[in-house]
Amino acid sequence: MKKYVKNLAKKAKEASYKLARLDSEKKNAILFKMADCLLENKDFILAENAKDVKAAIKNKLQKNFIDRLALTEKRLSEMSESLKEIAKLPDPVGKVIDQYQRPNGLKLKKVRTPIGVILVIFEARPNVTSDCAGLLFKSSNIAILRGGADSVNSNKAIAKVLESAIASSGLDFKPFFIIEKTDHKIVDLLLSENEYIDLVIPRGGEALIRKVVEKSKIPVIKHYKGVCHIFVDKEYDMGKAIRICVNAKVQRPSVCNAVEKILVHKDIANTFLPLLKSELDKYKVEIRGDSSSRRILKKIKKAKEEDWFAEYLDLIVTIKVVASIDEAISHINFYGSHHTDSIITKNASNAARFTREVDSACCFVNISTRFSDGFQFGLGAEIGISTDKIHARGPMGLVELTTYKWVVEGDGQVRE
Amino acid sequence: MKKYVKNLAKKAKEASYKLARLDSEKKNAILFKMADCLLENKDFILAENAKDVKAAIKNKLQKNFIDRLALTEKRLSEMSESLKEIAKLPDPVGKVIDQYQRPNGLKLKKVRTPIGVILVIFEARPNVTSDCAGLLFKSSNIAILRGGADSVNSNKAIAKVLESAIASSGLDFKPFFIIEKTDHKIVDLLLSENEYIDLVIPRGGEALIRKVVEKSKIPVIKHYKGVCHIFVDKEYDMGKAIRICVNAKVQRPSVCNAVEKILVHKDIANTFLPLLKSELDKYKVEIRGDSSSRRILKKIKKAKEEDWFAEYLDLIVTIKVVASIDEAISHINFYGSHHTDSIITKNASNAARFTREVDSACCFVNISTRFSDGFQFGLGAEIGISTDKIHARGPMGLVELTTYKWVVEGDGQVRE
Repeated sequence: MKKYVKNLAKKAKEASYKLARLDSEKKNAILFKMADCLLENKDFILAENAKDVKAAIKNKLQKNFIDRLALTEKRLSEMSESLKEIAKLPDPVGKVIDQYQRPNGLKLKKVRTPIGVILVIFEARPNVTSDCAGLLFKSSNIAILRGGADSVNSNKAIAKVLESAIASSGLDFKPFFIIEKTDHKIVDLLLSENEYIDLVIPRGGEALIRKVVEKSKIPVIKHYKGVCHIFVDKEYDMGKAIRICVNAKVQRPSVCNAVEKILVHKDIANTFLPLLKSELDKYKVEIRGDSSSRRILKKIKKAKEEDWFAEYLDLIVTIKVVASIDEAISHINFYGSHHTDSIITKNASNAARFTREVDSACCFVNISTRFSDGFQFGLGAEIGISTDKIHARGPMGLVELTTYKWVVEGDGQVRE
Repeated sequence: MKKYVKNLAKKAKEASYKLARLDSEKKNAILFKMADCLLENKDFILAENAKDVKAAIKNKLQKNFIDRLALTEKRLSEMSESLKEIAKLPDPVGKVIDQYQRPNGLKLKKVRTPIGVILVIFEARPNVTSDCAGLLFKSSNIAILRGGADSVNSNKAIAKVLESAIASSGLDFKPFFIIEKTDHKIVDLLLSENEYIDLVIPRGGEALIRKVVEKSKIPVIKHYKGVCHIFVDKEYDMGKAIRICVNAKVQRPSVCNAVEKILVHKDIANTFLPLLKSELDKYKVEIRGDSSSRRILKKIKKAKEEDWFAEYLDLIVTIKVVASIDEAISHINFYGSHHTDSIITKNASNAARFTREVDSACCFVNISTRFSDGFQFGLGAEIGISTDKIHARGPMGLVELTTYKWVVEGDGQVRE
């Protein structure tokens, strides 16, 4: 198996040099063809997906897991549409980011280039196969895609269909490689191929991502979890604060940009907290609180120390009363996950302090944390969200799937 | 020792939040003070350095190692001058890289921020201590500096002097931490502190860097080695080609941007190679060659397979005759180190192909590979060179020591 993996990684690297030569027009035409092929072969894909769903039911997997796994005609159209949208996005590759001339006549350019070979490890969401294949192809990166074992038939079917679209376009290399073997050992082997694979993007639960980081000899970009905060400051618009807190918690609680903790300035806690609670009660949100908030809101659960670190991904929120913006910032930097945090305030200097001092990928002012998303940011598509400090931070689109090189032209210059 | 390391890393992270609040003016004033203190305490630093040099001689370390270790008054002035130069460079922190508004009124800004805590691991060059302390301070990053065991007295002395400059400036935190313990285990422990340390930059030989990558749970930016190529194309200016090849090889052969391999187009090999050899002979450069170049240049050594991968860092060069630009590009991508490669050509479309298809951090046209350097690129200072694909590629200056955050302002917007 080691030989199989090395060979695959080596082939991927060789293909990356061919893909780097493909122009935008050709790439876009292929993306449109991929989109069409998905629809033309929908019966085949749905039949293969049904096998995975049947097995998942038999294996008594969780309902929301099966929901994510199951494809429908509507979902397939969305996948197809998404490939067309990617085709329409501007191509970052080849763009000159910066250029200048040195006194000795050297002309320097920083030019965007593909990263090379990118391994994406994800759980059982078959749409990720086509989304990632599309995003990585458009940014001229070779994709190695390893989906969850529970969606292996769906992934194989989607890959087969996309490959037929590519073959009919006359490419003489494979722009993506689907790992069909479900053996876990194969992932460990892939994560050792740092000579050929340039980057790993794991998508899924915290346990999966921690395992990948632990094993990988290749750089990894990831977020472990989203423990997002809203801090409601002393000078604030009550209506907006309520609307934002409720939206951030209930609009889609299962995702990483949903709010998990609400910090409230002590001077407004007595008026704001009861109102907030009565709104959250309408959506059956469980509230846990520190001792101050429990004095105001009777009968709420006591928050334990681990609650402040917790990503619930559910209709639960923990509330704390803070004495100042300083306490709010310190709390967020200590307990948070450096993903997305929002301040609700009318005070411009507090907004400036919050966005400067909170050490998170996304620092928001007077909006819902739910906006932390590549589409909402206008990136057009998203490969994931990074809470890392290097390369990319926050939502990652096509540009974040590129690197740059220095192109320097001269006329015979040498170093003195 | 584990507790000591965790405590140090945690303190560094806490300090990073304080450093992030310091403005440019204050940082620059402190850098000037650090520069002055180095000169004011030169006798102390030189005396401590003499201890290291004495021990190195006693331990029979190599001459060029001792050369790099030994400080002189002149070197100390250069270190001091370098801190002043860093003070004068523009501060990247807080710079808005991009800003735009979304149809729903959200105002998005990408703002440069410090990375946080950066661990620099280096060998016995005491000037690296002050250079790194300066660069990381200016970019508002907390530095953890671990120098080679053979320069421990020098590093401690420099750190003590710089710390006194900082203390007299009224900072209530330490902006850098020198690891004084020489036990190797401490490095392994530091490399596990991925909760508090954001980035590792190893500087030194390939063996050191491979060890760091192997052990680190923290992202690492590095280059293993510089196997730089020059490809002399068919249509070329002979005078420039000779001058560039000779400069790239002999001007400073011990550094990573010196040329190690010269590829020559077959159509010009008969005229070019004898001229090149007669010039290189003047500098006593040992030439190794493939079979074609050995037919033209009699009596040169035969290049073995491992020669094509080798970084000599010495007056040795390997020469190959290639049939085409395609062969040159494939050879460079396969055998090279993705550092810096240069084409000598009058053909603009070949120059464009070379700079697009060679997968290296720096792709040059008609200049010496020796220009691959932060100062030469006009970055003002350099923390190192990256052959990685993510975050930064090629020479890294202050900007490359920052990341960004998304600051998004609205007026009560929520997700539909």
